[in-house]
Amino acid sequence: MKKINNYKNYWGGAVFLAGSILAVPALAEEPGLGDTVVQLAYSVDTFYFLMSGALVMWMAAGFTMLESGLVRGKNTVEILTKNVALYAIACIMYMVVGYNIMYGDGVNGLIPGLSFFLGADNTVDEVLKSGGETYYSNMSDFFFQVVFVATAMSIVSGAVAERMKLWSFLLFAVVMTGVIYPVQGYWKWGGGFLDGLGFLDFAGSGVVHLCGASAALAGVILLGARKGKYANGKIKAIPGANLPLATLGTFILWLGWFGFNGGSELKISNIEEANAVSMVFVNTNTAAAGGLVAALLLARAWFGKADLTMALNGALAGLVAITAEPLTPSPLLATAVGAIGGLIVVAAIIFIDKAKIDDPVGAISVHGVVGIWGLLAVAFTNPKGSLLAQLIGIGTIFSWCFVTSFIVWLVIKGVMGIRVSEEEEMEGVDVAECGLAAYPEFTKD
Amino acid sequence: MKKINNYKNYWGGAVFLAGSILAVPALAEEPGLGDTVVQLAYSVDTFYFLMSGALVMWMAAGFTMLESGLVRGKNTVEILTKNVALYAIACIMYMVVGYNIMYGDGVNGLIPGLSFFLGADNTVDEVLKSGGETYYSNMSDFFFQVVFVATAMSIVSGAVAERMKLWSFLLFAVVMTGVIYPVQGYWKWGGGFLDGLGFLDFAGSGVVHLCGASAALAGVILLGARKGKYANGKIKAIPGANLPLATLGTFILWLGWFGFNGGSELKISNIEEANAVSMVFVNTNTAAAGGLVAALLLARAWFGKADLTMALNGALAGLVAITAEPLTPSPLLATAVGAIGGLIVVAAIIFIDKAKIDDPVGAISVHGVVGIWGLLAVAFTNPKGSLLAQLIGIGTIFSWCFVTSFIVWLVIKGVMGIRVSEEEEMEGVDVAECGLAAYPEFTKD
Amino acid sequence: MKKINNYKNYWGGAVFLAGSILAVPALAEEPGLGDTVVQLAYSVDTFYFLMSGALVMWMAAGFTMLESGLVRGKNTVEILTKNVALYAIACIMYMVVGYNIMYGDGVNGLIPGLSFFLGADNTVDEVLKSGGETYYSNMSDFFFQVVFVATAMSIVSGAVAERMKLWSFLLFAVVMTGVIYPVQGYWKWGGGFLDGLGFLDFAGSGVVHLCGASAALAGVILLGARKGKYANGKIKAIPGANLPLATLGTFILWLGWFGFNGGSELKISNIEEANAVSMVFVNTNTAAAGGLVAALLLARAWFGKADLTMALNGALAGLVAITAEPLTPSPLLATAVGAIGGLIVVAAIIFIDKAKIDDPVGAISVHGVVGIWGLLAVAFTNPKGSLLAQLIGIGTIFSWCFVTSFIVWLVIKGVMGIRVSEEEEMEGVDVAECGLAAYPEFTKD
Repeated sequence: MKKINNYKNYWGGAVFLAGSILAVPALAEEPGLGDTVVQLAYSVDTFYFLMSGALVMWMAAGFTMLESGLVRGKNTVEILTKNVALYAIACIMYMVVGYNIMYGDGVNGLIPGLSFFLGADNTVDEVLKSGGETYYSNMSDFFFQVVFVATAMSIVSGAVAERMKLWSFLLFAVVMTGVIYPVQGYWKWGGGFLDGLGFLDFAGSGVVHLCGASAALAGVILLGARKGKYANGKIKAIPGANLPLATLGTFILWLGWFGFNGGSELKISNIEEANAVSMVFVNTNTAAAGGLVAALLLARAWFGKADLTMALNGALAGLVAITAEPLTPSPLLATAVGAIGGLIVVAAIIFIDKAKIDDPVGAISVHGVVGIWGLLAVAFTNPKGSLLAQLIGIGTIFSWCFVTSFIVWLVIKGVMGIRVSEEEEMEGVDVAECGLAAYPEFTKD
Repeated sequence: MKKINNYKNYWGGAVFLAGSILAVPALAEEPGLGDTVVQLAYSVDTFYFLMSGALVMWMAAGFTMLESGLVRGKNTVEILTKNVALYAIACIMYMVVGYNIMYGDGVNGLIPGLSFFLGADNTVDEVLKSGGETYYSNMSDFFFQVVFVATAMSIVSGAVAERMKLWSFLLFAVVMTGVIYPVQGYWKWGGGFLDGLGFLDFAGSGVVHLCGASAALAGVILLGARKGKYANGKIKAIPGANLPLATLGTFILWLGWFGFNGGSELKISNIEEANAVSMVFVNTNTAAAGGLVAALLLARAWFGKADLTMALNGALAGLVAITAEPLTPSPLLATAVGAIGGLIVVAAIIFIDKAKIDDPVGAISVHGVVGIWGLLAVAFTNPKGSLLAQLIGIGTIFSWCFVTSFIVWLVIKGVMGIRVSEEEEMEGVDVAECGLAAYPEFTKD
Repeated sequence: MKKINNYKNYWGGAVFLAGSILAVPALAEEPGLGDTVVQLAYSVDTFYFLMSGALVMWMAAGFTMLESGLVRGKNTVEILTKNVALYAIACIMYMVVGYNIMYGDGVNGLIPGLSFFLGADNTVDEVLKSGGETYYSNMSDFFFQVVFVATAMSIVSGAVAERMKLWSFLLFAVVMTGVIYPVQGYWKWGGGFLDGLGFLDFAGSGVVHLCGASAALAGVILLGARKGKYANGKIKAIPGANLPLATLGTFILWLGWFGFNGGSELKISNIEEANAVSMVFVNTNTAAAGGLVAALLLARAWFGKADLTMALNGALAGLVAITAEPLTPSPLLATAVGAIGGLIVVAAIIFIDKAKIDDPVGAISVHGVVGIWGLLAVAFTNPKGSLLAQLIGIGTIFSWCFVTSFIVWLVIKGVMGIRVSEEEEMEGVDVAECGLAAYPEFTKD
């Protein structure tokens, strides 16, 4: 970070040239002003990618706070540990193998290729000769992509909270972030068959959210409900220990989503792209607002109270719903897409609970059910959308993620088990798994 | 977020042209390098707007954490719900009507026009033909503006905490963010009469902070103090339940304020503007530092302790104070402006409490009293400032916001009441209004 | 924030010129397109600096949350107060004197110069005439630098937590941020003798982290351990009160570190620099991931549990380790550097505890021991690195910071004492020092 420095005197040439342009034609070998401008645009797009990626990385903190606020105090350290560890595992596995599966040279549209580690970044020559096709740093792209994997994996941790073994979960994270997510990511964003079919998914209502929720559903089914959740034919509400944390987590996710959707435009360095990114910001924000208000009102109508957790899930539902297409709808239409997401999520949470699928944080409803809604909505909000293609995409992503996850969970169950013992669950998984209490001075016993 | 993509090969033309410039004059129809540079500058200014807006959006989380840390545990879910809901309402109402009132074609300098929803963004042609007048995306401007409305409304929720009905509050939020804020915003930032008068308010010590505080004051007066606060002629201190949250909230606000003030320069894409934005960042930061240190020392002198809540309010006071003019003062002068704000806020909180105006988080002192100080200070820190114009601005904003808010609160009071019942207040509004406890495992009973 | 505005019609000229270039040579006096591009690049680099600085500022919140989560409830308000106050003091002291010591005209390579306050920013003329040497705003540089000082100081507060007098600590902060840090900063980043020697420290494993840890060690030695920590020959574990806060703090630091390391490249506005910044982001992220996983596994092997606090310290260790050189290693090598940092930190925390050096949050291990590892690693990851130069740098920074801090702590101890009384420590420093409880409704008594 030394200030006094011998920088490659890059602009020197440019400034000199700027003068010389006006006088005599410069020699072809000299870097031209046009090249300088291309370089600057490359840096703007790269910078935009890095800032977007940083915002998405921040979503890892959002999921962590949300989930740790919605579980009981005795299971809080474990959910914290799972979340920080899954983020780290996602970053390493995606670097080692996942990124290359997803964005490498596929064998065909169905079967991705396999290669390892990250390559080099673009050289100056490559960029200048690419005629605009190469316009941002490969490494900034990797950074942006890697935080998406972590998002998909974060969805799982909430659904299986309070009873799944920590190390079994982390082992699943290795497979999920290294293989399961990248393969279906390849089918759409890597240029595989779903992309060829016309399936549209701007920032990942399907590739990220439905994928994570499908894996979560497989885990929850194999795992079973928490002890006492559905005892004696009744559904017992198990309140979270720290609602300010859950609210903070939602705000973090809302903020991070500007990077998630806004960065997925992939380019900002001309007027049309800058307008597009701005539209995505506005629509992302207003869809969340619509989802929140709709869920709050529906919960009020049904339960007679201003239910905070439903409002938070409504905001997240609005965000998930708009993620499949945040660019083409008008802000008013985006609000409606989000609001419908908010209504759906309240109904879905209740329905899934009645079906005795125990999802402590509502992740399957928010990311799965509303993810499907978001993908379907594209057929109506984007003129290029096809309902058939969207349905095929939904079916493919769900089937792939659910089935492969189910198999992996099953194997892990056979090898090392996936559920803590009944005593450990009663006592809380924190002591059993982590040997620490989250709030040693606060919780009563 | 597909990587492999047929981007409009924008730079191709530019690169080609860059070569051709040096050889032969290009045809007029081809996009020139100059246009490419204008497009790039547009994208930089838009990107800067979006990042600034994201930081201001983050302030909504700051207010939420601050307020939820400063109320009692039994009233925490309700303040969380109010804050997330007011943000959503602000976003929707400002989109539907507020933005067009504030920045539309006013009827005259006093009466704004009325139109609905957002229009389209700039076309490439419009931008290139505007000669530099149109230099960022309309939608990015809307995004930046909409988060300001939410800030103004967030100020209110803290002051009326622990006893106001939730739905009455949200109804007020609809009117405040749809009409009351935009009208006075038009008078200054929309080019209305206050702007014509020479009233200066760079980023909104008046338009945002004093406005919010005036609405809060009207509400607090109509609402009365919390039960037991001023019983038997004594002032009872009611400590907040979670001071780490309050501290986190202050840090979030401090961070978000770089977007609030920094973004209000509105342009960054040349040397003078980049220098200006940088100066605003430095002054915003140092004013907060000055406010914090001054409040900490004064509280130490008066109470003999290092009072954390006063220090936090001191930092916020420094931020509010510099908001009216963060560009023209030197960093040292900015520190002094902030420090005086810090001294004022300690005195104001004590005075307002003695006047039996019950403001649980000190919002009226921080945003109202110090907002006025900030506006007055402009007359001394900006050579173009006029004390008279500042006084007229203060009087106008306060009168408009206080009187209209008072009327709206009064109507709501008549229709549905604004205060919870005495039993609900004793029990805590969380159970009564939201049916949830914020910390079900922690709080003693 | 007025929208309707008479901006200096800067682009107008550029657009006009863009046309005129193609027709006739423009007059030399007119601003050329080349100048416009230089201005735009200046704004991009400045914007990048400001965003990076904002992220580093956010690290102050990270340290605050981390430390307040790791201390006991009765000492929480005090650690919050120390953290917010030290940030404010750092900002003021560095503005008044520190920045000029560090980056002023030194007397020679060993002795920095002395001057006060901040100068003016670059004029347009200076920038255009500098031939690319001046390429960002001075004020943006100051903003970026000032948040680094606060980081160094934040390291100290955790180590001396739960028993040091608040005002003594703040007095030390004045000297540390005004003199001790800037002098050794001058030796490396200001162009002093360490820089001349070839000592490499990209973003401050030494200048920031080792410096802070050395000052902390001096304080801890003079202060002694907390009561009961090493009673009866046994080491008593004293668990933190709020682990979600500690986790949040770690995520904040992780996010902020992208600004810390990413911004330390100092330039982003061409292809090579944009690639470099991207590589720094990727390596920073993956080193943290490596550190977390390594620490988690080692703690599991040694203690049989998934120790969350060790995992968090592992992530921070990875970040500290890569800070000395985040650019030259491949991502895989960066992961290894971080992972080794994660292993070292677990061992160091145990060793330092056995040596009866009482560091409640592990700051000396994370920032000191691992800071040294990071500096040594440069000799192997950067071809330009020299083990000898690194050793001299480590020795110099440690000696300077430890010895001067020791003297300053000693003087403060003599004048006003540095440790609270035994009764105050038992009762908790919050009541004694701040007159407030952090969680008045939660903690048992």
